[in-house]
Amino acid sequence: MPPTNPARRQALADASIELLASSGVHGVTHRAVEKASGLPPGTASNYFRSREALLVAAAERIVELHLADTDRATDRATDEAADQAVERPASLVDLLTESLLTAATTLRDRYLAIFELQLEATRRPVLASALASLEGAAVRITAGQHGKLGLTTPRATISALITFYAGALFTLVTSPPGSVSREAVQEMVQVIVRGCGIPEEESGLGEHRHSGHP
Amino acid sequence: MPPTNPARRQALADASIELLASSGVHGVTHRAVEKASGLPPGTASNYFRSREALLVAAAERIVELHLADTDRATDRATDEAADQAVERPASLVDLLTESLLTAATTLRDRYLAIFELQLEATRRPVLASALASLEGAAVRITAGQHGKLGLTTPRATISALITFYAGALFTLVTSPPGSVSREAVQEMVQVIVRGCGIPEEESGLGEHRHSGHP
Repeated sequence: MPPTNPARRQALADASIELLASSGVHGVTHRAVEKASGLPPGTASNYFRSREALLVAAAERIVELHLADTDRATDRATDEAADQAVERPASLVDLLTESLLTAATTLRDRYLAIFELQLEATRRPVLASALASLEGAAVRITAGQHGKLGLTTPRATISALITFYAGALFTLVTSPPGSVSREAVQEMVQVIVRGCGIPEEESGLGEHRHSGHP
Repeated sequence: MPPTNPARRQALADASIELLASSGVHGVTHRAVEKASGLPPGTASNYFRSREALLVAAAERIVELHLADTDRATDRATDEAADQAVERPASLVDLLTESLLTAATTLRDRYLAIFELQLEATRRPVLASALASLEGAAVRITAGQHGKLGLTTPRATISALITFYAGALFTLVTSPPGSVSREAVQEMVQVIVRGCGIPEEESGLGEHRHSGHP
């Protein structure tokens, strides 16, 4: 019978994420994730037959965590607006700025890890196909979140938003830690929502415009 | 006396780039680059004392090749316009589309390699500082190219263009080879130039707009 302790499985996936960030893809081995999660030798291969399975589990866990975070932020924004607990509802620019800033700072390791996996996937078709199906799910779920926020963003634009959010994030997580400012992140988000053609009344871009560039 | 055969030095740097793409950063060793460039054992460490020096050389070579390509494209566009060899001069959208498409397809390995190096740089301060100085040079040279093309793009916007060009390229080079179309690349470029606020009369965006999204 395969092992079925979900907390243990999750601890191993979380350890893989940390190792991806700290040591690169080469640092993820069964033994290293066991050590990092304080589990006895042999545990990791009970849950994940191959290194590749371990990498796929890390990718799944990152996307699960990311979407749980954006779900929470979406619900908070809609609840606050419904309760009139805030003066004006959080705009798409607010939500994306907060999300991108947190991703680039507090959660930097998580996103360094997904970029490591995307590069490794160019050499591992199994990982590539796992990432492709996770990306499909991310587009669907993000589209649902836009719907909850009352936005009418077309599916192609959701994909473009995800592409450019990820692209900005790559630059941010590979910048020296401590160099990322909220203002710089907000300017990036403004470039993205303007570039993707989100109407100003939906993006909240007008409220934030404060300088001519870029 | 240190070895000074520039062709040999370049062959070793080029081999590092290929190994970065095919095997990831871990695949770049003195022995592997010697094998890949058909040079005898010991040659690589004569030119590059450490693995880190080899990685820095690969980064320098990638940026040198990239800027030589964009320089050539800029000169071609200005020469053709001066000679009236073309009906209308290549616009910024044309130039960026061509550049991004070539980077994502013919030159995919080169750009996979630079992304590998950027992630590795989060763990290697020496490599990070080499990349930072290369990026500074790239901004200056790109600004000069915009000037040649008669564009008045501010420095901050040049940086934003580079960030989002690189971000789009990350998505493209990590997509399945063969899945990259000129149309998809052009749509990405349209998002970038619109998002960065390049005026339509400078970007050539109006000439290309053919659909509502994204």
